[in-house]
Amino acid sequence: MSIKRIDAGARMSGAVIHGNTVYLAGQVGEGATVTDQCKDALGEVDRLLAAAGSDKSKILQTLIYLSDISDFAEMNAAWEAWVDPANTPARATSEAKLAAPKYKVEFIVTAAI
Amino acid sequence: MSIKRIDAGARMSGAVIHGNTVYLAGQVGEGATVTDQCKDALGEVDRLLAAAGSDKSKILQTLIYLSDISDFAEMNAAWEAWVDPANTPARATSEAKLAAPKYKVEFIVTAAI
Amino acid sequence: MSIKRIDAGARMSGAVIHGNTVYLAGQVGEGATVTDQCKDALGEVDRLLAAAGSDKSKILQTLIYLSDISDFAEMNAAWEAWVDPANTPARATSEAKLAAPKYKVEFIVTAAI
Repeated sequence: MSIKRIDAGARMSGAVIHGNTVYLAGQVGEGATVTDQCKDALGEVDRLLAAAGSDKSKILQTLIYLSDISDFAEMNAAWEAWVDPANTPARATSEAKLAAPKYKVEFIVTAAI
Repeated sequence: MSIKRIDAGARMSGAVIHGNTVYLAGQVGEGATVTDQCKDALGEVDRLLAAAGSDKSKILQTLIYLSDISDFAEMNAAWEAWVDPANTPARATSEAKLAAPKYKVEFIVTAAI
Repeated sequence: MSIKRIDAGARMSGAVIHGNTVYLAGQVGEGATVTDQCKDALGEVDRLLAAAGSDKSKILQTLIYLSDISDFAEMNAAWEAWVDPANTPARATSEAKLAAPKYKVEFIVTAAI
């Protein structure tokens, strides 16, 4: 099967398509609050999925990292405002410090095309 | 390829089938000990795999989160009592706090159908 | 689709092939520094990918765990010295304690064949 890379850089690509599956790089967002960062990061997920010929109704799996697990409820509210409620992915959330201290949440998405 | 969702909810689905691959939501279990929680969570993995037309002999990859990495040996004993020893997946284990403090272990499973 | 396991053991396999995709077990390395551990672990990634009929130019996704996120820059330097700059994967890095305290970094690789 073919491999196609989107937003390819020397360290990583924004997304990699293999056959009918697309793997996205972990997406973080800017903003002072968990809600703002979720909106920004999930907007970037939308953009990368569109570039791959997919959309949020076709997400298969999402791993979510929170730098503070006590933000779980706030992240879930932002997630549920965004996700297609009729087509939700398998999901797993855990606490993990992220690449820079300012980042509160990261979404790692695998989707169908 | 078709997408089929099992135990679909507005936040996440229990499992998502894409072609010949099934992605399970992270599974936690009830119980006072790591062993009990592993048994409960892996029983749920069995149930979801069966609903997807798969079983534990077809697991491709498993990510394991432990809230305390010092439970590694106890988790491994429960894992080895459960997994098909002739058909083991690629696996990675790390320490991570989980969605609720009571949870000690979580299994994130990808399997073939 | 067929399933083929490489370096199969009773707890886990080193790699599992499903159709045109290979899932590697999390790879850690020996050595006193992050750089040394990256070189060792990524050498093992090379070995497993070759055994699967793949190579680093076909990596789709890599999850990276660092036991101390302040090692991010040192890991990136070792990563960029190794990865095929024309064919980089989707990537996500987070902090997580690993199975033994001596391990500073772990790479979880999914690749095309």
